[in-house]
Amino acid sequence: MEASLHELKLKVRDYECDLQGIVNNANYQHYIEHARHEFLLSRGISFARLHADGIDAVVSAVNMRFKLPLKSGDEFVVRTSFEHVSFKYIFHQDIYRLPDMRLAVRATVDTVCVVNGQLSDIDIL
Amino acid sequence: MEASLHELKLKVRDYECDLQGIVNNANYQHYIEHARHEFLLSRGISFARLHADGIDAVVSAVNMRFKLPLKSGDEFVVRTSFEHVSFKYIFHQDIYRLPDMRLAVRATVDTVCVVNGQLSDIDIL
Amino acid sequence: MEASLHELKLKVRDYECDLQGIVNNANYQHYIEHARHEFLLSRGISFARLHADGIDAVVSAVNMRFKLPLKSGDEFVVRTSFEHVSFKYIFHQDIYRLPDMRLAVRATVDTVCVVNGQLSDIDIL
Amino acid sequence: MEASLHELKLKVRDYECDLQGIVNNANYQHYIEHARHEFLLSRGISFARLHADGIDAVVSAVNMRFKLPLKSGDEFVVRTSFEHVSFKYIFHQDIYRLPDMRLAVRATVDTVCVVNGQLSDIDIL
Repeated sequence: MEASLHELKLKVRDYECDLQGIVNNANYQHYIEHARHEFLLSRGISFARLHADGIDAVVSAVNMRFKLPLKSGDEFVVRTSFEHVSFKYIFHQDIYRLPDMRLAVRATVDTVCVVNGQLSDIDIL
Repeated sequence: MEASLHELKLKVRDYECDLQGIVNNANYQHYIEHARHEFLLSRGISFARLHADGIDAVVSAVNMRFKLPLKSGDEFVVRTSFEHVSFKYIFHQDIYRLPDMRLAVRATVDTVCVVNGQLSDIDIL
Repeated sequence: MEASLHELKLKVRDYECDLQGIVNNANYQHYIEHARHEFLLSRGISFARLHADGIDAVVSAVNMRFKLPLKSGDEFVVRTSFEHVSFKYIFHQDIYRLPDMRLAVRATVDTVCVVNGQLSDIDIL
Repeated sequence: MEASLHELKLKVRDYECDLQGIVNNANYQHYIEHARHEFLLSRGISFARLHADGIDAVVSAVNMRFKLPLKSGDEFVVRTSFEHVSFKYIFHQDIYRLPDMRLAVRATVDTVCVVNGQLSDIDIL
């Protein structure tokens, strides 16, 4: 695994909070997806362009541990690194609350590339 | 673990699909959350009422494996069972596409109860 | 305008509620979009298929009045009718809370068809 | 009406795009809600704090015209101004695509304050 390669700073939007007054869990999947796509863009790779070119990067597994709930007004940073293992890109993504840098979410996301409906070992990164 | 206790039939809504034309991964987390809450309701427990009573059922971990993408127009069923281990309720939730009953998503969701900000071993189920 | 042509019964999902404990406004737009697409399907027209065929039905205007907030556990019905005026399909969509049938949202949605990036007067309904 | 009082720069996130490859309409409601709440914060008013204090700012009407679809990778700015008319705060919110500053969405949002379930003429701005 490489050290943290990419950081994205974001802020909770109120519509992302649910009736408990905290960010709804599914939104953390949105945050880390957006961070992965921004990471790809920082390397010149567009998720939308890949799709238009017939290459779909798809998530095969997500593993998330929720340590600390984020709330209205909170700012946070998503740190992303990855390793390339066989057919998979395995992303390690941690979300830290700002400014105290307490760990909010620890995630591992496995992704694979599908080309014309077939699993592919194409090297996109 | 108990056998499957609860089934919820749903249908993909087009706004849940992303630019790849398949259901965006975060929406599966929405589906299984909704299925858990409907399961709770079937036992007379309201997530919103719990919150109003100062009891927050929160997700501490999510583990999802994506086997088959759901698409516009697909119907599916979410099967939910759970086990109570120490402080945790561990939900096992599988999503099957209809009508062929192929497995689309396999998920495990750990939840804990927080009362007044403290982890609690309160028995809600 | 034709009389109500289509009814879709739905139920609030907890993740659709925000920190005020009521359905977040943007979700009503989701509800009525889903109702329009189900209405189209009831006439044999798939939104996804249209897109695959190069025809994009796009919303040009939305007008919504919010009368009554829906909450966790509420069931509701979306009633849809439409009129075809020049290039536009104008949908009239009302959301009624069940079982008391009180009006929750009154909406008008203008849609147009875009074919190869150009406004089209193609007749899809 | 006052001149534009507040600007918020944002970027499309891929999960906000639907199967047509453009931002799903409901997400524009999210964008302008977030812009209003950031505007409030810039004046020291927190939407979440208002709610905790028993004051709910709720949307009574939304009027949106969609001029230009935003796509994956697009950046944009939301410009917000408002007028206070009787019980209502009427927000005028325009979304411009960057960098060409073409108008993407023009919106008017009526909001009212509800205190203990009753419409209130409380002055929050």
